[in-house]
Amino acid sequence: MTDQPVAALTARPLPASLPEARAAIDEVDTALAALLEYRAGLTEQVQQLKPVGGRAGRDPDREAEIVAGMARQAPRLGRERLRRIMTAVIEESLDLAERGAATTR
Amino acid sequence: MTDQPVAALTARPLPASLPEARAAIDEVDTALAALLEYRAGLTEQVQQLKPVGGRAGRDPDREAEIVAGMARQAPRLGRERLRRIMTAVIEESLDLAERGAATTR
Repeated sequence: MTDQPVAALTARPLPASLPEARAAIDEVDTALAALLEYRAGLTEQVQQLKPVGGRAGRDPDREAEIVAGMARQAPRLGRERLRRIMTAVIEESLDLAERGAATTR
Repeated sequence: MTDQPVAALTARPLPASLPEARAAIDEVDTALAALLEYRAGLTEQVQQLKPVGGRAGRDPDREAEIVAGMARQAPRLGRERLRRIMTAVIEESLDLAERGAATTR
């Protein structure tokens, strides 16, 4: 499946005006929101299936492997920036798994 | 276009085993990497088109609007968690716009 699901968004040339660029960011963020919500559900699933869950069960090797794989797909952002982004994604997903859904939306 | 590009990924039921859940996370992360790289390019574009760019040109109202829109799509993660994730995404994208592509991948 690789990156085909998002190619409709990412294969387009960069827009030339500020309003078009912002509209393109909004489209990307709509897709990001759907992916992050689904990924958070997967994290909850993993927490239930793992022998040691939560922050204590975090696996630095697995996280480094995730980031390295993403850096091959996103070489301009690169490993360090992706590591910082994915740390936020993983921490917030674990927070949801531990504390449950937000009460204020 | 909304979230259709990623529906092939996110409309699936949650997997029942740890290896399947991790494989699904890897597929999501492949799509995330492509979207984040494209979004970073859009951020660079916006930086060039805006009168005041960089961190000084950050617009808290626009960022809050982005997060609010995403929270409607991802209500379980919710606004506060998405705000922390998107702060990382925006800061790393601005870092790329200012300092250029990573030299170590």
